[in-house]
Amino acid sequence: MDGLHETMQAVCLRRVPQGMPQAQDFELRQLPLPTPGDSQLRIQVQWLSLDPFLRAQLGGRYAVPCPPLGSIVPGYGIGTVLEDRSGRFAVGEVVSGLTGWAEQAVLDAGTVSRVDATLAPISTAVGVLGIPGLTAWAGVRRILEPKPGQTLLVSTAAGAVGSVVGQLCGAAGCRVVGISGSAEKCAIATAEFGFDACVNYRDADFLQSLRAACPDGIDGYFDNVGGAVLEAALSLLNLHARVVLCGLSDQYNRAERPAGPNLGPVIGARARLEGLVVYDHLADFDLCRRELAAMIADGTLRYREHIHDGLASAPAGFIGLLNGDNLGKALVRL
Amino acid sequence: MDGLHETMQAVCLRRVPQGMPQAQDFELRQLPLPTPGDSQLRIQVQWLSLDPFLRAQLGGRYAVPCPPLGSIVPGYGIGTVLEDRSGRFAVGEVVSGLTGWAEQAVLDAGTVSRVDATLAPISTAVGVLGIPGLTAWAGVRRILEPKPGQTLLVSTAAGAVGSVVGQLCGAAGCRVVGISGSAEKCAIATAEFGFDACVNYRDADFLQSLRAACPDGIDGYFDNVGGAVLEAALSLLNLHARVVLCGLSDQYNRAERPAGPNLGPVIGARARLEGLVVYDHLADFDLCRRELAAMIADGTLRYREHIHDGLASAPAGFIGLLNGDNLGKALVRL
Repeated sequence: MDGLHETMQAVCLRRVPQGMPQAQDFELRQLPLPTPGDSQLRIQVQWLSLDPFLRAQLGGRYAVPCPPLGSIVPGYGIGTVLEDRSGRFAVGEVVSGLTGWAEQAVLDAGTVSRVDATLAPISTAVGVLGIPGLTAWAGVRRILEPKPGQTLLVSTAAGAVGSVVGQLCGAAGCRVVGISGSAEKCAIATAEFGFDACVNYRDADFLQSLRAACPDGIDGYFDNVGGAVLEAALSLLNLHARVVLCGLSDQYNRAERPAGPNLGPVIGARARLEGLVVYDHLADFDLCRRELAAMIADGTLRYREHIHDGLASAPAGFIGLLNGDNLGKALVRL
Repeated sequence: MDGLHETMQAVCLRRVPQGMPQAQDFELRQLPLPTPGDSQLRIQVQWLSLDPFLRAQLGGRYAVPCPPLGSIVPGYGIGTVLEDRSGRFAVGEVVSGLTGWAEQAVLDAGTVSRVDATLAPISTAVGVLGIPGLTAWAGVRRILEPKPGQTLLVSTAAGAVGSVVGQLCGAAGCRVVGISGSAEKCAIATAEFGFDACVNYRDADFLQSLRAACPDGIDGYFDNVGGAVLEAALSLLNLHARVVLCGLSDQYNRAERPAGPNLGPVIGARARLEGLVVYDHLADFDLCRRELAAMIADGTLRYREHIHDGLASAPAGFIGLLNGDNLGKALVRL
């Protein structure tokens, strides 16, 4: 297959997957060769990347909407330039971009990246040196900030993202514990990627094994899973631990979201949730009191008290507080 | 009642509350007057603080364990010094500390704070100028960091913490929206505490009203509740929004924890959960690639590829990836 053919093969979306995708959700079709416009280039695809986020996208749960039925399945690819109308690439150069599942692709030159074939095999441009690698790197460098001697926990430990997270944390001097979905993957995580331990979340004694692998708790956790795996990790958090919320593979194939607070919007918003325990801030008490007292004095801060009279009224006052009956700060006057 | 009496009244824990506390869980008893040891002082209690966290403590879900049956119910109080053996306080001075629900208390001098009666009425030492005020202040100043023009959402808006959070955010130039549990409390939040709007979470159209009150989404949320209220707030998060996880009043009175990820340990650990979307970090792609390529070159970073051959193998490869069958980065070679 080359640029002289008039058609190309492509895999198109036949129907929107329900639950786990089926082969019949996709269709191999013969399509006309795409033609580049100004500032576009035509690529002969050599490698396609298969990524879990595509499932979220096909379910309409991703930043980018689900493509229309009949269109080429979207995805990253790597290929060589067949034709360039942007003046920015040479024919034969290796590039990566959102080619989709097709033999050829036409892309805007601005959305295409050069692949440096001297760094590593070109297929790494969608793996360890591509978006999975950047995901791991950004999570470690920008959020986890691992310190020597800390314990870092990593889900999907043998995967494209998790394996890099684990190795970056190991290089930072951490004890690195992985979570994976089979004994084989756990063996890969420890033997190939240097994890100090790896626990199979499908094992019946998963929680027990995880605790045993993290005797000092965890100082950071990289989550690609959500659900029960996240729940287990949260139960091991040390003081001021950091958690990267990166994926929810636990729910990509479910028709219904699992119960409980949905952390999907937290990922989408790049939001930060932080636990507050007031006793950490006692050193600021004088500063706080001065500021608030000044605001009370100048009328910009109001307060309200709900007063119960006599020591014997304390239980009823407390019960009322829990019922939400009080209006303002609940107090007992002796 | 003064220091000359030989006994005092106290409210003691008769049994551990199950679900919503009952009056019979408590017992008013006559106890011997406590006697201060070295570096302690004896206090005549004038005000007792009633606080929701006590419910968590009585349920064994708090940093401080549940007190033994028969002992005085713990809690903050304010009173005057009757007798000082620390040499640090004068008789008659007003102080606050963990007096418990009793007419008198003996406390270590190091755990007692002077109350400045010139700042505001002394009862505020357990309210707006006490731990609730510090909680609000620390959440706003150290986590939310509200900016003018942002929308801030505050749960328990009419309460001792929420009312201060709202007013601090209002003073910072924000649109402030409250969540509360009755129409009366919502009216207090807007009329007394200056909230721009307040929504009753018990209303059938709560979610709809909340969305209407936050037409531009929310840039910060102070959560004292958890559960469905937190879930509603998360659905409104703007980019890089911040959430203070401070309380879980939704579950204090439940025998069983609600389903889904339990955020209790996140509060206890003062942990930080942060959403990561890799596309925010594209500017770092070159830096990341250089670092990772150098690690590949010197053998400290390994990767693994799971290769499927031919475009037609893409659907099966993708399905296998979602099944967890792949070992390493999933690729299709064309």
